[in-house]
Amino acid sequence: MTTARSRASLLWAAESFVRQFAQEDPGARDPDERVREIAASVAAFGTYTHTSEELTYGARIAWRNSARCIGRLYWQSLIVRDLRDLTHPDDIAYECFEHLRMATNGGKIRPVISIFAPDRPNRPAARLLNEQLVRYADDPRSARHTALLQEMGWKGGHGRFEVLPLMVQVAPHRPPECYELPEDAVWEVPLVHPHHPGFAALALRWHAVPAVSDMTLEIGGIHYPAAPFNGWYMGTEIGSRNLADADRYDLLPVVAQLFGLDARDERTLWRDRALVELNLAVLHSFERVGVTIADHHTESRRFLSHIQREERHGRKVPADWSWIVPPLSSGSTAVFHRYYDPPDPLATPAFRHRPMP
Amino acid sequence: MTTARSRASLLWAAESFVRQFAQEDPGARDPDERVREIAASVAAFGTYTHTSEELTYGARIAWRNSARCIGRLYWQSLIVRDLRDLTHPDDIAYECFEHLRMATNGGKIRPVISIFAPDRPNRPAARLLNEQLVRYADDPRSARHTALLQEMGWKGGHGRFEVLPLMVQVAPHRPPECYELPEDAVWEVPLVHPHHPGFAALALRWHAVPAVSDMTLEIGGIHYPAAPFNGWYMGTEIGSRNLADADRYDLLPVVAQLFGLDARDERTLWRDRALVELNLAVLHSFERVGVTIADHHTESRRFLSHIQREERHGRKVPADWSWIVPPLSSGSTAVFHRYYDPPDPLATPAFRHRPMP
Ligand code: HEM
Ligand code: HEM
Repeated sequence: MTTARSRASLLWAAESFVRQFAQEDPGARDPDERVREIAASVAAFGTYTHTSEELTYGARIAWRNSARCIGRLYWQSLIVRDLRDLTHPDDIAYECFEHLRMATNGGKIRPVISIFAPDRPNRPAARLLNEQLVRYADDPRSARHTALLQEMGWKGGHGRFEVLPLMVQVAPHRPPECYELPEDAVWEVPLVHPHHPGFAALALRWHAVPAVSDMTLEIGGIHYPAAPFNGWYMGTEIGSRNLADADRYDLLPVVAQLFGLDARDERTLWRDRALVELNLAVLHSFERVGVTIADHHTESRRFLSHIQREERHGRKVPADWSWIVPPLSSGSTAVFHRYYDPPDPLATPAFRHRPMP
Repeated sequence: MTTARSRASLLWAAESFVRQFAQEDPGARDPDERVREIAASVAAFGTYTHTSEELTYGARIAWRNSARCIGRLYWQSLIVRDLRDLTHPDDIAYECFEHLRMATNGGKIRPVISIFAPDRPNRPAARLLNEQLVRYADDPRSARHTALLQEMGWKGGHGRFEVLPLMVQVAPHRPPECYELPEDAVWEVPLVHPHHPGFAALALRWHAVPAVSDMTLEIGGIHYPAAPFNGWYMGTEIGSRNLADADRYDLLPVVAQLFGLDARDERTLWRDRALVELNLAVLHSFERVGVTIADHHTESRRFLSHIQREERHGRKVPADWSWIVPPLSSGSTAVFHRYYDPPDPLATPAFRHRPMP
């Protein structure tokens, strides 16, 4: 059952989306007519269906609206895969793997989003339980997921950098269906250091494509809970956070030892130096095998170009300073030395976090 | 002339300060009695005078309230110099130099504040035009001050790291009186690098005491425009900002060259590496000559202790994330991985910026 109130708020959200689309894109349909059509659908079924143009536009604007994302310069180039007719978990898993192949693109990473069926009144859609399409079982960040999988009988998760199976949950309170990722869908980069041959012996690696899979895409009042999206990596995500954070792989002490740094005294700046070595290894290793990656200085400048370009179109660029500013040498990146329009939590279309089930 | 309205708001501010003091300090005077006394003074003169206990408490709380300051763990140890009877610029300058000597303390830096006469109704007090008691003429940040001094006939400002004279302005629209800082009041640290002997040839140096001199201290509705205060340096202020920022000394390219880094390609992380070398030189050089300085990892942990301690006293610690989190290796400092209570722009006592004259 949908209430009169939820229908009214859905209509309101739909109308404001349709009008925004028409305003930004002269090729869009007559908004009055489209609003009438949506109203009829909502009256009859409690919901409505986006045209594929609306879906594409909506997903791109959701990216443009992501206040935490430094990579928004290329929002218009997002490849939108319309997979709304898929609801069977086998199909969803299959297309997630296809997503990874398409995004990987032989190393020349492309931003892609795959949009599966939306929630319908009293019929929530399938969702992916994984935080990202590719996550490692021994990453402390995956502890709950790894434990869940093992409870369900997964035999893996004892080695290093083992990729978690994909968990597709077709309905709330149902156990997820699990799928091992095919090898050819997951490109990985072995980490080596340009000047220290011993680095390779640490046997570190990371995957090529960061694809967030647990956020809900909201467009015009419609919720797409299964809508994994990816960009390319900015090196610091791997070198300064995933591999370095004390509650992630916590590798600074290991790297410090390899480079002979004195880790007993903070004032040797051993942490800072180990970070530089680790980040250098990440950038160098991706580049060496031909996988797109951005350094934080370049990506910072691109973000400022993005702001300039958006402002020429009369649009603000809300941004979350503490997420935008890179975690390495922040004071020396182009994005540090200014404030931004504050994030607008009501802006839509949007990607939204949901509580972990 | 003071208006009824400005008197009412002064009284309101005074009363809330007096009550806060009484609540926090059982040794404080009976607040009801003190409020009546202040009311009588405001009725007669349009203002009132803090007791020296109120002044000390007020200055310390202003520090504790500074949402941008990572160094607040030691707020109770602030040395408060009561110099409210001084109004002649010669005396003010003399006591600013004494401040520096007392703060320097043979290298064992002590946090000190010197509080000169407050603004009175229709009689604004003297103020210092300098941003800090010690600033260099060739620091691009001082460009306006250097130009102003030269217009007024100052012959200096052509060398490197020349200390700007102190500018004491006794009344608005009056030209400031200028005073050269005595050599023994300004300790400076020549910068050397622990492993690279060539670093010393860059002939860099920095002064020992950061003493902010252009903020107004506000306590219970009374404004003290001349109230310079200092802590000790956190290394990144010098190594990652003052010497590194492109609009300050912009030394990363110079350091990169010294260390043979390839500055044509961002992906060599030459900026990040040069930053580490510069910061290491700063910490090492201060330590070598026995001048207190904090590294950003240690100061970050102290700030978290501060929060814990304040919470045990039932107090929040408003903090400005983008100022608190250090500009070097931010992701690997203890303060990065959380949010803080938002700054409260109405909190008093407080240090406030004022528009540059
Ligand atoms: C094209 C290259 C891209 C780069 C370099 C990039 C970079 C980043 C970075 C560094 C973060 C912060 C991550 C963190 O600290 O955990 C971020 C967050 C985010 N990005 Fe991007 N991004 C890219 C593409 C995309 C795309 C294609 C989308 C969506 C279509 C997107 C949406 C987001 C969102 C929603 C967040 C916030 C995630 C959260 O709240 O956990 N980004 N991005
Ligand atoms: C004891 C050692 C201290 C340390 C290590 C310290 C550290 C810092 C740092 C790193 C900043 C940011 C500076 C910037 O990025 O420009 C800051 C800001 C600030 N600190 Fe402290 N501080 C100390 C003592 C004090 C004292 C004694 C006071 C006042 C009594 C104070 C009041 C402030 C204020 C008001 C700001 C903000 C300045 C502005 O808005 O420009 N600090 N502090």
